[in-house]
Amino acid sequence: MSTRLGQLVESLGGQLIGNPDILITGMAALDGAGPQHITFLSNPKLRAQACSSAAGALILTELDHAVVSKTYHGAFVITQNPYAYYARAAQFFQALHALPVVPGVHASAVVHPDAIVASSAVIGPNVTIEAGAEIGEDCVIGAGCFIGRSARLGKATVFHPNVSFLTNCSIGMRGIIQSGAVIGGDGFGFANDKGAWIKIPQTGGVIIGDDVEIGCNTTIDRGALDSTIIEDGVKLDNQIQIGHNCVIGAHTAMAGCVGVAGSTKIGSHCTFGGAAMVLGHLRIADKVHVSSGSLVSRSILEAGQYTGFYPLAKNADWEKSAAIVRNLDAMRKRLRELEKTIKLLSEINLEKNSEKNNSSLQKVGEN
Amino acid sequence: MSTRLGQLVESLGGQLIGNPDILITGMAALDGAGPQHITFLSNPKLRAQACSSAAGALILTELDHAVVSKTYHGAFVITQNPYAYYARAAQFFQALHALPVVPGVHASAVVHPDAIVASSAVIGPNVTIEAGAEIGEDCVIGAGCFIGRSARLGKATVFHPNVSFLTNCSIGMRGIIQSGAVIGGDGFGFANDKGAWIKIPQTGGVIIGDDVEIGCNTTIDRGALDSTIIEDGVKLDNQIQIGHNCVIGAHTAMAGCVGVAGSTKIGSHCTFGGAAMVLGHLRIADKVHVSSGSLVSRSILEAGQYTGFYPLAKNADWEKSAAIVRNLDAMRKRLRELEKTIKLLSEINLEKNSEKNNSSLQKVGEN
Amino acid sequence: MSTRLGQLVESLGGQLIGNPDILITGMAALDGAGPQHITFLSNPKLRAQACSSAAGALILTELDHAVVSKTYHGAFVITQNPYAYYARAAQFFQALHALPVVPGVHASAVVHPDAIVASSAVIGPNVTIEAGAEIGEDCVIGAGCFIGRSARLGKATVFHPNVSFLTNCSIGMRGIIQSGAVIGGDGFGFANDKGAWIKIPQTGGVIIGDDVEIGCNTTIDRGALDSTIIEDGVKLDNQIQIGHNCVIGAHTAMAGCVGVAGSTKIGSHCTFGGAAMVLGHLRIADKVHVSSGSLVSRSILEAGQYTGFYPLAKNADWEKSAAIVRNLDAMRKRLRELEKTIKLLSEINLEKNSEKNNSSLQKVGEN
Repeated sequence: MSTRLGQLVESLGGQLIGNPDILITGMAALDGAGPQHITFLSNPKLRAQACSSAAGALILTELDHAVVSKTYHGAFVITQNPYAYYARAAQFFQALHALPVVPGVHASAVVHPDAIVASSAVIGPNVTIEAGAEIGEDCVIGAGCFIGRSARLGKATVFHPNVSFLTNCSIGMRGIIQSGAVIGGDGFGFANDKGAWIKIPQTGGVIIGDDVEIGCNTTIDRGALDSTIIEDGVKLDNQIQIGHNCVIGAHTAMAGCVGVAGSTKIGSHCTFGGAAMVLGHLRIADKVHVSSGSLVSRSILEAGQYTGFYPLAKNADWEKSAAIVRNLDAMRKRLRELEKTIKLLSEINLEKNSEKNNSSLQKVGEN
Repeated sequence: MSTRLGQLVESLGGQLIGNPDILITGMAALDGAGPQHITFLSNPKLRAQACSSAAGALILTELDHAVVSKTYHGAFVITQNPYAYYARAAQFFQALHALPVVPGVHASAVVHPDAIVASSAVIGPNVTIEAGAEIGEDCVIGAGCFIGRSARLGKATVFHPNVSFLTNCSIGMRGIIQSGAVIGGDGFGFANDKGAWIKIPQTGGVIIGDDVEIGCNTTIDRGALDSTIIEDGVKLDNQIQIGHNCVIGAHTAMAGCVGVAGSTKIGSHCTFGGAAMVLGHLRIADKVHVSSGSLVSRSILEAGQYTGFYPLAKNADWEKSAAIVRNLDAMRKRLRELEKTIKLLSEINLEKNSEKNNSSLQKVGEN
Repeated sequence: MSTRLGQLVESLGGQLIGNPDILITGMAALDGAGPQHITFLSNPKLRAQACSSAAGALILTELDHAVVSKTYHGAFVITQNPYAYYARAAQFFQALHALPVVPGVHASAVVHPDAIVASSAVIGPNVTIEAGAEIGEDCVIGAGCFIGRSARLGKATVFHPNVSFLTNCSIGMRGIIQSGAVIGGDGFGFANDKGAWIKIPQTGGVIIGDDVEIGCNTTIDRGALDSTIIEDGVKLDNQIQIGHNCVIGAHTAMAGCVGVAGSTKIGSHCTFGGAAMVLGHLRIADKVHVSSGSLVSRSILEAGQYTGFYPLAKNADWEKSAAIVRNLDAMRKRLRELEKTIKLLSEINLEKNSEKNNSSLQKVGEN
């Protein structure tokens, strides 16, 4: 199946330079594209690759066009944000190639009679849906998913196979939950009484907004008394853990393996690099960006980029540095001792060199 | 459904000050509670919130009571450990509100004829139970769980949906396993022979004691020859990985994303903060507390709090610090050089200032 | 069931010293073995345990034999690599004790009529297999697994229960995927357009070679345009995350909780310790070994051992060291100031001590 390039540009906008009648079957990478593909240039480092690409059409900025058009001979689609255009074009072709969806509940699915499933929804094999759950229009529930009592799914939300979406949790419209994710497990709440742990029942839910994507094997715990909240447009990658009663602000994105401990409230438009960890009961402002592998051990009240991981080194070098890190306090003491000694030495020398006006030595004495 | 406050206190203990006949429907947080709720004050920082809470009753210490009773007008339940009382009260209300349980095996579950399922147990939809498995009285097995050959579950253990509990594993009484957890996957054991990895069959099991809780998507590997052991009262949060042949001592608790490599033996009453990692073949004493994000690279033989993570900073500051960390050895050499030089300078000055008895300079010479 | 020791050695090689007719039922650890067991000594630290082992037979090197044979009275199997011999012997006994496999599709499994399942394959309860999928000879698919459209499994590959193996993914021969793993989830790809994230459809697959093992709850994302590639002989432990478009080279092994961000290409014969994290778009050479807990933030082009984690300390000591780490730049400035001062002091002293030829002081001036 293919589309006229002109039709694509009519749908998505941008300025077309070239033949609108060429037929495009889909997206491809710069180096793998043929005449039937459209590709994109969003990283100026790849200009050389773009120049020699065999793609039928190329999405790029006006600036890059000025350079690339000298050697590349296909059509151009000019836009301010080629990467976003790529995303939309790929969605266009995904819809074009999509298999027809047949609404209905698979015979092997177990749907409680008190659950409400929209007639346009698709419920896959071996799915379980409990009493009181509501599945909105156009939802697609993959094989083996579990949807607990009174859970609610908004219109056009998709669960990939083997998702666990537990009692009283809700998600808005156009959500995507990848395989193996667990929404609504009990928060980790225990009171210690003379050495033994007493479980605190977790009776809150998880409330997820619209346009949220949750990655494979990611876990979001239900709240203890109130609910855990994931606001609109949040994107969570795989194997992320969100503790009970967290709030993740709108359009915040987290890469794989991030962990957020309980009751932390994160602002909107934040990003967290892979394996960043955030302790509990903190506040993170809007537009905070945390680098991969960093542990956030205190609240961050100001937007900006924050980092904290140990620099990688050859093992032998690391062993030296780490040994010193462990003894930095001793090193600091030696430094202080030197400063004192030098102050004394300087004073002695100053006395003897009173004819010389040595400001540098005086400065040492002030440290 | 509600309960008389007097009845709650008769069940759980504590000293009631106020009207025993008010009706309570459940727990709520200090700021969300109304007259039908009981709430608790365990953190003295929240005294002001407690003073103005609209809750019908308040659990707190005698000390806090002295302060809060001046302005709060509901009933009091006085106890030494309000947080533990909260846990027990929440359990009380959970039982009060619990839906009736209907024992039996769902028609869609696949139970091998050689498995033994207690008549009071509940087996959910799409569950698979293999030959020789034993499911104790009052167990509840959620939809989609898998219980392997000869696995054993003690009385009143609960599996949430989509747990994998594999061949020959066992868990004691009153256990809780959250969704997506995998107990008894093969340990990571390979012998290297000329560059290729030869799999070592993992023939041990996983033996889990009583009152253990295991979080969502947590994985505990079976032992290579002997078994992996999780002792009574252990609490594991989500996405924890326990390697083969580990022993986790009684009442030890681990927050989310912790990893413990194979053959490590951890004592009892330890705690591990989120994302702490423990290398293999180590010994950790009782009552060791490891801070979040710390890597335990050696055995810890003494109780206490241990920490090791890189401090978070603004990215620009981190870049400076990290660059220096990488070159700490050079910095130490410069320090040594200075010390030597100063020793020399001091000696020269001492010679020339023999009339001055300068102990500070002499001290430098001894470093 | 047991085997003659002579028969075992005929199958696996090595030099037998002792009675070939003793009967062995299986492997056991040095300290748990009885006369019916064979055990192994691969760590010289355990020689004493070997000397007093009650095992019927002992696998060891010639060097260890010279020592142990003085006191140990069972049979010996001498080999250059006792650990690899142990792996093969354990495989031998696993095959000996294996339950008979009954090929066929369980009645509760949902297999699309357009899927191809080899007649020797075993498809467990509650499995879903979609259209176009191909399951090779001798494959075993555990209960609750999902196998998506057009997925392909080579001969003798085993999926433990509850694996999700999604559309268009493929794995070669003799693969093992542990429970809860998800292969082919969408890569984490979003374009940011004025603060909102636009999903980039992930249309590549995951291509996995022969003899690959993938651990419990590990996730491997499908590629954005091209595919994610896992080469032959790769071994991945539990809870590992591999981002889209990564390439993991042949025979590379990763311990639990490792994360690799998108588009990183890792060479062959590498090893990654537990919880090591690798950022995206990097290149890692062959035979690179990364220590546990290290964050790889740049490409590594040379074989070797690399490390980068913060050393663990008693919490009080850590607090001091971490505070200094945060202020290392200030410490470096103080050091520079001292060096300048000492240079000055040295010059003054040199002038006054021109009779003394003090090379050490001169050296300071050159820093």
